[in-house]
Order: sequence, then structure tokens, then C-alpha cells
Amino acid sequence: MAAMETRRVRPELRDFEPYVAGRSIDEIKAKYNLHSVIKMASNENPLGTSPVVQKVIRDNVPLAFRYAQAGNPLLRSALAGYLGVVDAECLVCGNGSDEIIDLLIRVLARPGKDNIVAFDPCFSIYKVQAKLCGVEFRQVALDDNFHFPWDALLAKADERTKIIFVTNPDNPSGYAVPVTDLVDLASRIPEDALLVVDEAYIDFADPLEEYSMLPVFRKMTNVVLLRTFSKLFGLAGLRLGYGIMPPWLADYLMRSRLPFSVNILAEKAGIAAVQDEIFIAKTRETVLRGRRDLTQGMQAAGCTVYPSQANFLLVRPPMDPAIICERLLRKGIIIRGLGSYGLDAFFRVSVGNEEENRIFLGAITEVLNG
Amino acid sequence: MAAMETRRVRPELRDFEPYVAGRSIDEIKAKYNLHSVIKMASNENPLGTSPVVQKVIRDNVPLAFRYAQAGNPLLRSALAGYLGVVDAECLVCGNGSDEIIDLLIRVLARPGKDNIVAFDPCFSIYKVQAKLCGVEFRQVALDDNFHFPWDALLAKADERTKIIFVTNPDNPSGYAVPVTDLVDLASRIPEDALLVVDEAYIDFADPLEEYSMLPVFRKMTNVVLLRTFSKLFGLAGLRLGYGIMPPWLADYLMRSRLPFSVNILAEKAGIAAVQDEIFIAKTRETVLRGRRDLTQGMQAAGCTVYPSQANFLLVRPPMDPAIICERLLRKGIIIRGLGSYGLDAFFRVSVGNEEENRIFLGAITEVLNG
Repeated sequence: MAAMETRRVRPELRDFEPYVAGRSIDEIKAKYNLHSVIKMASNENPLGTSPVVQKVIRDNVPLAFRYAQAGNPLLRSALAGYLGVVDAECLVCGNGSDEIIDLLIRVLARPGKDNIVAFDPCFSIYKVQAKLCGVEFRQVALDDNFHFPWDALLAKADERTKIIFVTNPDNPSGYAVPVTDLVDLASRIPEDALLVVDEAYIDFADPLEEYSMLPVFRKMTNVVLLRTFSKLFGLAGLRLGYGIMPPWLADYLMRSRLPFSVNILAEKAGIAAVQDEIFIAKTRETVLRGRRDLTQGMQAAGCTVYPSQANFLLVRPPMDPAIICERLLRKGIIIRGLGSYGLDAFFRVSVGNEEENRIFLGAITEVLNG
Repeated sequence: MAAMETRRVRPELRDFEPYVAGRSIDEIKAKYNLHSVIKMASNENPLGTSPVVQKVIRDNVPLAFRYAQAGNPLLRSALAGYLGVVDAECLVCGNGSDEIIDLLIRVLARPGKDNIVAFDPCFSIYKVQAKLCGVEFRQVALDDNFHFPWDALLAKADERTKIIFVTNPDNPSGYAVPVTDLVDLASRIPEDALLVVDEAYIDFADPLEEYSMLPVFRKMTNVVLLRTFSKLFGLAGLRLGYGIMPPWLADYLMRSRLPFSVNILAEKAGIAAVQDEIFIAKTRETVLRGRRDLTQGMQAAGCTVYPSQANFLLVRPPMDPAIICERLLRKGIIIRGLGSYGLDAFFRVSVGNEEENRIFLGAITEVLNG
């Protein structure tokens, strides 16, 4: 019956892959009989969630039965205050930046007519949501060293291109381009296209002002920035992301979004998180130091480590990464294989806290030495 | 510039209305200089969130930095256990049932080709999401007494109809039809259509077994049920809803949904909430008693109160509802005017707890008598 029933499914969706859930820390513990497991696979905050923000969440739990105020006006104001150079009317909050990506495609691109351009590999959500919207998704292979071939990207775009996605710093490479490159790119894209720069990892770029488009945002008319609370702010599980965009576009996203997509605890946590300067500084410091330590340690163990401006590292080890991942799992360490990105010779490891980094370096050195 | 820039927006969306945020309790307090405000406007749980579930949420706050396990397998299992008569593979959880509504349309209906049928008025999200998807939305006016004109509904459906939405109990009337009516309807809809019965308020129907389609779900091949944690479980602010559907359809929704749309605290809270039998029973009891008390009190004050199987009442007062709403606001009571439903002569009031109901009845009696 199932085969007959799938005729009901929209043709564009019939070849969507079944979702394969990743293994949880609890499953790994049970499978390998481990007491503790270190997860360095999902680019979460190595310090967890700020204690200050945790307290705010706990204090607001009695409000869980209330709908949040639709449109999240207080959160948008707090964010505008934090960012400093954009008004609240340029901001749209979502259930993770995933929702903003989806909304941008839905608002801008006509199914069956328009197209979207991005690099290959890229964040899988760009592609899946374009396909779900029935919008053509065009990809341009990254250079061998994971750099961005701008001319090839522009050659794929045409008058039907509505969005060009660039992730800066990029995932899974950690590679980042200076803001001047992106300003130049924005001046060269087709008139009807918007450049959407996904700055999920921008807070870990060093120095920040060399990479972030935020300071120049007001001068641009065709640029959207995506940000997330999942990394710097340690709130991946609460789902909170936002877009910074021209007011006319923010207005249409606000008209089109589900009014209660941001949950009330994420809203309260977000407002507290942007004011928590101590945690922000500590996270940056931890990531920058950990990134340096992990790079040196893995190089010493014989790996090629790509320069990263993010809170993770792309690594080409001198051994099959699948074997490395499996052996690390047995030791209670979860890293990320990159088969789903088509990068079988690589793995990605998130920067952990000091102890996690030390344990990981000890373990991978052991694996690579024998 | 804004006018010129909106050419970039998909034509179907250009007439979307700007979102008007409702006033929050804090705003009402400030505006009318009130110490306490009672909200009986959004059909939230009159008892708040269960203390047991609140504790589970608080205990899990340290996990806020982690992504939840994609696909929410533990929550789906817990739900299957609670429901008793469906397997986990029939269940899809979402960021509120709003997300499930959106996914059903996206998976089933081809933009510009297919159509969706519902009553008028109906839950606004059905219409907005259909429009956002570029799918024709056909509506059939309810009978004068808010009953369902089945033949007129069926007359609107054709071979391009992919979804027929019915809300049972209905919002804002509280009217509900017995399950036998819906089984009959399902046997008469076009072959390619699915009957989606939104049971957001089903837990307040009395007796439940006369109204819920859950017990007969296994026998149906073209029925989807929608449920929410916002009402019975007191978790509106955490955003958690789910659909009960044939496995082939659940499979495609799982393939198409954003993998982390349900936040980690909603997941943990949901698992706890379905096991909290005491709170479930207490909520039902509070709503059924409050519904009866409010009905009698408002009838005594000269209102026409429609029979309701939900946790709210539709009321036709002997005075302009806009004036009533405003005067109640001054007394610190928020109810729901129904202008957005095209029902200017009515208001809707959510069942509160015993004290809230008493205060509301005192206030409205005063307003109507003075």
C-alpha cells in the first residue's frame, strides 16, 4: 500500500532521503559500556549554557503554559541593542536560523521559476528547503583548498536567481573571507538576487572586524545576514536564530512566519544572553585557545588541519576517518565524519573545553600511533 | 524604495497582512495601571504547567546548549505509549501543531495545481500556510448555528483536493461532531484527498469517546489527526504539537521537516507531561466544571452562550462586544474579540481557574448591568 500511497506526495519530494537520526550520548554510553562520553560533533558551545542564562530560563519555567508575545518584540529590541548598528525592524527571529532560511526562500523564490545558488558542499538546509519549495538549487564546487571561486559562483547566477548563499566562516572547512570580498561580491550579483551571508560562526573569527558584514550592513541594499544563538550563546537546544535584513524584507518575513515559532523560554534566554558579556568573552577566549591547541596537537600527530575561523576544525588524517571515528567512539569521544558532505577523507572536530581537548588529543594520538 | 523592492516578493504573498501583535499582560498592566491581570483570551491551561513537568524542565536546563536528538525518537515512543492505539511510526512531532499543518500542505499539495478545503471561519493558520505554499484554499461557510454543512463541504472538493481540514471541537464555537459523522465524511471525500481532523481541543470533549477519532484511527486510511501540548498539557509557550497519520505520510513528513524543530526542553517536558495522570485529570475536571459555571453565569447575565466541548466559550452578548472587551480590560481581564473571524457580534472567553471565572463573571455582570 505504501508504494501506492506515495502517489499522493508531491513529485519533487519523492526522492527525499529518509532521515537518519544521529546516535545520542546515552546510546553511545550503553553500546560501549562507558561512564562518560565527550561530544565534539555538533559545534555546540564548549562551556555549555551560561549560568546566568540558565537561571533566567529556570525562573521563567512557570510561564511555559503561556503563548509568547507573537512577533517577539522584546527580543528584537534586545537584539538591536546588542548589535548596535541595526534597528529592530531589520531583525526577524526564528526557531533556529533554519526557519529564517526557509522563510527567505518561501518569500522570495517562485516555485518552478526561480533559482538559488550556493557552493558545494554547503549547509544541507539550504538545499533541502529549496527543494521542498520546488525551487531550483544550483551549486558550484569549492576550490580544492575549500576557498570560494567567486567567478564560478557568479557564472551560475542569472536573472532568475533570487538568493546566493555564502557561509562565512564556512562549514565544514572553517575557511572565512574578509568582508571586502563580500562587499565586492554583493556589487556583482544580478539585480534581483540577494546575497545571504550565513554568519553562524562569525563570532569566532579573529579579528572579528575583518570578517563580519554587520558593520557595513547599513550601506548594503541586497545583503541578508544570518545569525544563531546555538554557538556563541550556548542555546542550540532552545532553537533561536535570526536574520538581519532590509526592513521591507523583514516586514514580509514577519507577515509570513508562524506567529509563535520562537518558544517563550528561548525568547527569555535570548534577551538575557545578549547582555551576558562575561560569558560571551569567556566563550570566545575558550574557542580561540582551544582551536590553537587542537591544531597544534593534531598537526603533531600527523594530521593536515585546515585554518579555521570557526569553533571547529576540518582535518585530513593519515588514516581512514571512518576507522578513527569508530575507535574514538569506543573511547567515548564523538566527532563528525563527513561522508554526508562527500568528504570521505576528512573529519570535523568541534572545539571542546580545555579538558575535552586534552582527552581528545590524547585519544587521537593513540589511535594514529597504533 | 520599499515599494520598488517588494517586486522581489513572490506575487502570492504581496497582499499578506502585516502582523499585529496582541497586547501582553505587562502592557495592559502599564496602560490601565493595574496590579494583576487575568488572561482568558488564548485558551491556555487554567492550571498553568504541571508542577511535575515544571521540575523536569528546570532539571534539564543545563542541556539547553545541546541539540536535541533529531527526529525526537524518545518523545514519539512516549507519545505512542500514552495514546495506546497507534505506533510511533504514525507520529510526527512539530514546533506546535502549526508546523505539522504547514508540513502536510507542503508534502501533499502541488503549488498552483491542487487545492485545500475548509470551513469559514476556521483556524487562520490553515489558510495562511496554504497561501504561502501557493495552494488554492476553498472555504465553505458554517451554518448559522456554527454547525458543519457536510454536503456543501464535499461539493467544494474535487480530484485536485489534497486536504480537507475539520476542527473538532471547532474554534471559536466549541461545537463538536460525533466520531460517526467524521467516519462517514472520510468515506465520502475524493480518493486523493485526506481528511485532517484538528483535535487541538478534543481532550475537553465530554464524553471523550463520543468525539475523538483516535480509537478508530487504525481502521482509517485517509485520516490525519492533529494534537497539541498547548491546552491539556499546559505547554503553549514551549511549542509542541503532533500529527497522527498513516506511516507512509509520517515517513515523508519526517523526511521533509527541519530536523531540530522541536526544542530540547519541549521534548523533555512532553515526555513527562503524558505520564502526569493527576494533572491531566485535574485539568479536565477544572475545565468541565468551569465551562458549566461560566455558561450558567453568563446566561444569567443575559448572554447567549453556545454549547462548547472545548476549553472556551463562544458568547453573543446583549451589547457591543468591542465595548465589553474594552471595559473588561480596564478591570484587568483580557478576553478575545472575534473581529478577525468576521464575528463582530460575538466574543470568546477561555475557561479560567475557579477564581478567574468568579472574577470574570462578577466583572461582566457589572459591565452588562451598568
